[in-house]
Amino acid sequence: MSNAPAGGVKQSVREQARAARAAARKLALVSNDARNEVLLDVAKRTEQSAARILAANAEDCRAAEELARGGKLSAAAFARLRVSEKTVREMVQRLEEVSRLEDPIGKRLATTELDEGLILYKESCPLGVVAVVFESRPDVVPQVAALAFKSGNAVLLKGGAEAARTNEVLVGLWQEAVRERSGVASAAVTLLQSRADVMELLELKREVDLIVPRGSREFVEFISANSKVPVLGHGEGICHVYVDRAADFAKAHAIVLDAKTQYPAACNAMETLLVHQDVADKFLPQAAAKLSAAGVELRGCERTRAILPAVNLKHASEVDWATEYSELILSIRVVDSLDAALDHIAEYGSLHTESIVTEDAAAAQRFLDEVDAAGVYQNVSTRFADGYRYGLGSEVGISNSKLHARGPMGMEGLTTYKYKLVGNGHIISTYARGERTLHPRSLTKPS
Amino acid sequence: MSNAPAGGVKQSVREQARAARAAARKLALVSNDARNEVLLDVAKRTEQSAARILAANAEDCRAAEELARGGKLSAAAFARLRVSEKTVREMVQRLEEVSRLEDPIGKRLATTELDEGLILYKESCPLGVVAVVFESRPDVVPQVAALAFKSGNAVLLKGGAEAARTNEVLVGLWQEAVRERSGVASAAVTLLQSRADVMELLELKREVDLIVPRGSREFVEFISANSKVPVLGHGEGICHVYVDRAADFAKAHAIVLDAKTQYPAACNAMETLLVHQDVADKFLPQAAAKLSAAGVELRGCERTRAILPAVNLKHASEVDWATEYSELILSIRVVDSLDAALDHIAEYGSLHTESIVTEDAAAAQRFLDEVDAAGVYQNVSTRFADGYRYGLGSEVGISNSKLHARGPMGMEGLTTYKYKLVGNGHIISTYARGERTLHPRSLTKPS
Repeated sequence: MSNAPAGGVKQSVREQARAARAAARKLALVSNDARNEVLLDVAKRTEQSAARILAANAEDCRAAEELARGGKLSAAAFARLRVSEKTVREMVQRLEEVSRLEDPIGKRLATTELDEGLILYKESCPLGVVAVVFESRPDVVPQVAALAFKSGNAVLLKGGAEAARTNEVLVGLWQEAVRERSGVASAAVTLLQSRADVMELLELKREVDLIVPRGSREFVEFISANSKVPVLGHGEGICHVYVDRAADFAKAHAIVLDAKTQYPAACNAMETLLVHQDVADKFLPQAAAKLSAAGVELRGCERTRAILPAVNLKHASEVDWATEYSELILSIRVVDSLDAALDHIAEYGSLHTESIVTEDAAAAQRFLDEVDAAGVYQNVSTRFADGYRYGLGSEVGISNSKLHARGPMGMEGLTTYKYKLVGNGHIISTYARGERTLHPRSLTKPS
Repeated sequence: MSNAPAGGVKQSVREQARAARAAARKLALVSNDARNEVLLDVAKRTEQSAARILAANAEDCRAAEELARGGKLSAAAFARLRVSEKTVREMVQRLEEVSRLEDPIGKRLATTELDEGLILYKESCPLGVVAVVFESRPDVVPQVAALAFKSGNAVLLKGGAEAARTNEVLVGLWQEAVRERSGVASAAVTLLQSRADVMELLELKREVDLIVPRGSREFVEFISANSKVPVLGHGEGICHVYVDRAADFAKAHAIVLDAKTQYPAACNAMETLLVHQDVADKFLPQAAAKLSAAGVELRGCERTRAILPAVNLKHASEVDWATEYSELILSIRVVDSLDAALDHIAEYGSLHTESIVTEDAAAAQRFLDEVDAAGVYQNVSTRFADGYRYGLGSEVGISNSKLHARGPMGMEGLTTYKYKLVGNGHIISTYARGERTLHPRSLTKPS
């Protein structure tokens, strides 16, 4: 058992976190090459252990099937639990990809000469200990562990009970590789198993630097409200597509259909469609036909309903504008202008991802500049908001916070910085007495 | 009254914050030149209004004197309240300095081509609405307002009641300049006056993006524990100076004295001195003599007390290692090795500022790399941890958090970023069906 030491006595979460902290202090000093070697070693072990992973997963799935039959596990969660040979191949591939990413640690972010012989360096460094709490989806394990390890962080992984066997095999591969290849304690990648562990985790503000919860809105809000450790995650994804009066209809139809139906449970799926009044008459009938054909239930404002009398739309209320459906339901609102669209998004958006469809460069520029969201898109489906697609290798999670990390969180979100100040006996009294003056001068090369 | 609209009815904090949010949306679009013009206009108004500022401050001081006599205001708080002609000149100077800093907004942080015609831009932008809660010290008003305004943020300033008249005059100058020079609503710089306002502020997670509390540890901890809005600040500053066995004694004596006595109430003052056992015999007697002469009460571990029998030190306990004295008291510990010093700091440090005194490059390197703190120094007094000294123009506060902003927080801490994705009708279905593959390619010029 990954959380039982030699003696077989289960460690407390605090003890595990302290062991992770100790491992993190060592890991922060391991070279990028050595960290990459571990990643590639895990990739190899994953490939070689495919049968073992699939067998463990089959067991998890058998147990979960009973839960699903008893209504204790949703069909969606059950689907996300299953690991196929293709999943394993993708795990291997992602590990290799992360190993090829640039080292995020020890980057010199700024250099400033404060006075003669007094140089201030701002350098990136790991956060320390990161905890990720997730449900089902065992492929989160290699993704998150790779990003954490490559950025010099120890990671506490708390997976769902339904994936316990699969997760244990996957974390086991990491622990072997870390121990054998890096000389760092295997506590650098630790699996927390029991549900009670989460409550204990939330108290560990001295031992854990960041908690990333991945799951339902209620779950993320619960963690945020109850944690003494900083939390980054996204509670809600209320994403809009705004079809401007200068929209290219072909693009708009494709984007609207993709943003709503390609994977409606995703947080970056569209929940509300905004259409400029000048084009609503022409755009909406065909859009509604396509969406209805794809099984989408439509709800509309009064003007939308007047344009689509045959469809007999449900009235969209204030509640609809503020709802993340996460399923094949879409609310539609006709707006007077770009400004009205901006106001609607400012009022109801969740700072996640917002898209304008337009050929008007000035309108696009205003939308991209003025909308406050992690992602602001022109002529692109909202579904692109994803760390892997952004070229971050993978993602630890998506952050709706404006602080620290915004949107898809890759390795940069797992780093912080420190100021290194090197002098030669410099004391403040000299400057307070006016004997010398500080004259900060940037030595950073302009990028 | 700055918080009373035309009708004279006091607005609620939520209403004030919503007005600030509306102003912030406009302010985010104001050019750097126009923002600088406001800063320089405030500087001019401050210079011209010196007499009015001093008169208001004199009134505040008279009222505060009674509070101080009644024991309701500490002598330190009373000292910080007073504004002199020199303070006003410094306010003007700081405003001019911030106007000369580089624009922190609209910086292209990264550019990535995801596929043909699909370009991802990562750009810096303002947080939105920032609230700063502080005590006494009216010079915080121009400093914080300048950093916030220059970085495109609206700011809610909650000062102490004891500085109400001074703060009102200072904020008034901002409101006139903002209104006349930028066309943005004066709510961009808003003063909150009543103590009850703070509790209301902590609830406004939709209206306010960040709260920075400045004050006692208890105050900061209270705000952090009770706020639904993200909080950055520092509860504690337990800073160490470690005198290594390869220390230059002249530098070490000067740094130790400066770090403890130059301004003992500062969060970056030293609280514990660590000395390598090989040099403790030689270093400590003279250090103790100098510190005692400066009025410092010394407490020591057993080995320290054995070296300094004449001084009759109090025994330093576990409690001492974990205490921020904020006054002329110092705990001293003799350690076996650099590793023991690193362990002590990892155990008791508050991630604030830590300094090593050594001529040994390898020891310094280890200290700077391994110590987890916002500031890690070699041969420099811990007292340098300050935004103004770091060349940030000024500081909004100091952050002990590892997330978002670390150490002295200048304008960068008041910015976030957004991803702008520009395409030509790109939808995920194309990639999910395997018709095309994303191949993220960085177009960012290496710095």
